Amino acid sequence: MAEEAAVRAQAETVRRLKQDKADADEIAKEVAKLLEMKAQLGTDEGKHKFVLKTPKGTRDFGPKEMAIRERAFKAIISCFKRHGAEVIDTPVFELKETLTGKYGEDSKLIYDLKDQGGELLSLRYDLTVPFARYLAMNKITNIKRYHIAKVYRRDNPAMTRGRYREFYQCDFDIAGQFDPMIPDAECLKIVHEILSDLQLGDFVIKVNDRRILDGMFAVCGVPDSKFRTICSSVDKLDKVPWEEVRSEMVGEKGLSPEAADRIGEYVQLHGGLDLIEQLLQDPKLSQNKVAKEGLGDMKLLFEYLTLFGITGKISFDLSLARGLDYYTGVIFEAVLLQQENEHGEEPVSVGSVAGGGRYDGLVGMFDPKGRKVPCVGVSIGIERIFSILEQRLEASEEKIRTTETQVLVASAQKKLLEERLKLISELWDAGIKAEMLYKKNPKLLNQLQYCEETGIPLVAIVGEQELKDGVVKLRIVATREEVSVRRESLVEEIRIRTSQC
Amino acid sequence: MAEEAAVRAQAETVRRLKQDKADADEIAKEVAKLLEMKAQLGTDEGKHKFVLKTPKGTRDFGPKEMAIRERAFKAIISCFKRHGAEVIDTPVFELKETLTGKYGEDSKLIYDLKDQGGELLSLRYDLTVPFARYLAMNKITNIKRYHIAKVYRRDNPAMTRGRYREFYQCDFDIAGQFDPMIPDAECLKIVHEILSDLQLGDFVIKVNDRRILDGMFAVCGVPDSKFRTICSSVDKLDKVPWEEVRSEMVGEKGLSPEAADRIGEYVQLHGGLDLIEQLLQDPKLSQNKVAKEGLGDMKLLFEYLTLFGITGKISFDLSLARGLDYYTGVIFEAVLLQQENEHGEEPVSVGSVAGGGRYDGLVGMFDPKGRKVPCVGVSIGIERIFSILEQRLEASEEKIRTTETQVLVASAQKKLLEERLKLISELWDAGIKAEMLYKKNPKLLNQLQYCEETGIPLVAIVGEQELKDGVVKLRIVATREEVSVRRESLVEEIRIRTSQC
Repeated sequence: MAEEAAVRAQAETVRRLKQDKADADEIAKEVAKLLEMKAQLGTDEGKHKFVLKTPKGTRDFGPKEMAIRERAFKAIISCFKRHGAEVIDTPVFELKETLTGKYGEDSKLIYDLKDQGGELLSLRYDLTVPFARYLAMNKITNIKRYHIAKVYRRDNPAMTRGRYREFYQCDFDIAGQFDPMIPDAECLKIVHEILSDLQLGDFVIKVNDRRILDGMFAVCGVPDSKFRTICSSVDKLDKVPWEEVRSEMVGEKGLSPEAADRIGEYVQLHGGLDLIEQLLQDPKLSQNKVAKEGLGDMKLLFEYLTLFGITGKISFDLSLARGLDYYTGVIFEAVLLQQENEHGEEPVSVGSVAGGGRYDGLVGMFDPKGRKVPCVGVSIGIERIFSILEQRLEASEEKIRTTETQVLVASAQKKLLEERLKLISELWDAGIKAEMLYKKNPKLLNQLQYCEETGIPLVAIVGEQELKDGVVKLRIVATREEVSVRRESLVEEIRIRTSQC
Repeated sequence: MAEEAAVRAQAETVRRLKQDKADADEIAKEVAKLLEMKAQLGTDEGKHKFVLKTPKGTRDFGPKEMAIRERAFKAIISCFKRHGAEVIDTPVFELKETLTGKYGEDSKLIYDLKDQGGELLSLRYDLTVPFARYLAMNKITNIKRYHIAKVYRRDNPAMTRGRYREFYQCDFDIAGQFDPMIPDAECLKIVHEILSDLQLGDFVIKVNDRRILDGMFAVCGVPDSKFRTICSSVDKLDKVPWEEVRSEMVGEKGLSPEAADRIGEYVQLHGGLDLIEQLLQDPKLSQNKVAKEGLGDMKLLFEYLTLFGITGKISFDLSLARGLDYYTGVIFEAVLLQQENEHGEEPVSVGSVAGGGRYDGLVGMFDPKGRKVPCVGVSIGIERIFSILEQRLEASEEKIRTTETQVLVASAQKKLLEERLKLISELWDAGIKAEMLYKKNPKLLNQLQYCEETGIPLVAIVGEQELKDGVVKLRIVATREEVSVRRESLVEEIRIRTSQC
């Protein structure tokens, strides 16, 4: 009893500290708002009242960020294509009712468009619901597709940690009636390939099954009506400790303390095939039909993953729940592990970079006759990956090029603008990537400097003598070597000298 | 005179036929709407009330459309890169006030987001204003960038003609203080390269200058305060005849009939260097300072375009006005010319596919100190181009592939799922694009048929005998030839046999 009182007192302290923190945050927000208003008033000369910024939770991508982004996309797209996926695209907004009732507690984060007459619209919240709408609308029962596009969530942004209100998702999904766990295993293989390819450090892919969770809830004594909401609580276990999740279950959601404690025992468990075998023998779980089905399929999944040689990074984890309502079978989430522990501690998770699962009922929600199309898919959360790649590039010495220009067309003397225009036009028409300075009479030094700054490897210099001789002087920027090239051989010479680019 | 009457009668017939066609279209639309409403009421079982569709004026891109879209993008991006452009990206929405006052009469077409607490946001209307905001916000005074992204306009969609509410723009812009007309000429060269490369048939690029228009309005007696609104009227000349535009100017906009008639004479003019020379001698225009500046620069532009060898497709056209408020100098618009005229008539314009111009004041509108950054740019309107490419592909015999899969991993007997999984995993890890059917025991015929349908060129067949012998049977789908390949040489063999893909 004394112990219980102590725990309660501690819980109360934690609650109060949190309230203080929330109040402080609220005050800080108010102050920031006032400062912003003051700034607007202060600099106002009666003309420029607006704040020069992108909307909250969004950002621009400059040329450097784009270069990094395209590298990551390239790795991801080439993996999706390696697995034979087609590509589709859908509008950035959907009819509001298309999104209604698909996201559970997260629905409040959907961006709505203003009613300007006509249809009520919302920005897409993910790519999965539009995909299901697309399948139902076009009566497609069998497709393997990827879709890379921005999605929108009115969440609290944490931009330094790669959490935005506008962000990319890279989705790969397999729709169709197939033999169990074969497409599911492929989705996990894809996550494994992409995370390995991007060299983001060590990672683990947690796997669970909604049927195992539901069975577990049933045998722990959770009433059917509370399955989804208790599942939402379990989903928070990667961010908050069990004690807090437990008190949410019991306090807010009215679960009996005994049921919560039984759940508490299960959700500690994680492992591999051995754990699956153990749970298949579990006197309670093995009596539950859906749990047994889920465990049987999980076993099959692990057999396939063994053939793929990737079980080393897979953890069957009973605490994995995933927030979204629409999952019906296997669910999974990949997290990066922090390696820089000095004291040899266990690697710490730094956050989810991919997630997905099976959603066999979603397409049926859109079909007028409720016809189901089983689906399983994975979504790569690219923003956190960008953050890591950006930080790494900043730390490294590598200078990233933001153009692919092969040659700068330059002149050594004045009055050669027309000759430069003629030459660059010839090069463009031959498919050479070429630039020139937009000056009538640029200094040679400035032209060479431009190449140094932007990484252009070659300079084609026209001069009066060269024009008379029918040649162009080609300068290799890195070595400062200069060679005279006949005008008719110039294109070929540039191609050869930049063939590694 | 009899001939004239005949021509007039013919024109009247055409006008009446067009009206009939428009009426019929209107009726068909109404019927479709009623049928849709009926369908909603009819199939409703109290559960699925919503309409299964994309929002008005938007569409999905399925795998086939995406394949066409990516071809067009590839041509456009490779041109932009050939000209040394970097790439940027901005959020899909901006602060509402960022877009305010930039689009003149078109502002009513902007999509606003609902006020859900926080900032007031609008979907971007083009990529130019976000670009200017980006430059001012980051104090960039010098950049050459492209940006390919969707923009949003609450316009009346005409989807069969490629006019949507959500559509792509492909923008290339050069910002910075440079010598006159050099970047402007490059923008026109880019339009010329892209339209030639895409082989869309004959086209013409109309060019004018806002300064020439303003000077023309001044010498015609248009009051300064009416310049923008009269400019909007002139902009309609590509869609409606002069008589209608004239009555809008005089009736709605209160211009004197004499001023309108003077404008009417100028806007008939189009030509090349000769017309520029003629107008430079025009007793009224040559006395107007801005017109003279504009004409001088137009002459310079034509000199540069002559060096680029593209004046054959360029028409200096005094009726070109462009709708947007922010242009300050050169403006241009590319239109495709319809060739299928049977009676040897003049080619008819089928609509604009690219447009752009110089906007030297826009960045300054965002800079707190009003610092200007001169800009010129071009926007490729890709949707109409898609429509044409789609129609052409449909008409042709070409079968477009929507995946890049090199090989299907198949089996000839039952119980070989594990062997297929092992082999496909090896292939994926070696970078081969491979698929398999998600069936435990698929029939060989079904596997071969899948290759025929999807264009997969090779089949790697595992069978019990092959497994014993350490080989794989490789079947070439097109020729039905089969060769036995040692397992360790399989990757190399697939690479060689698909190197042209």
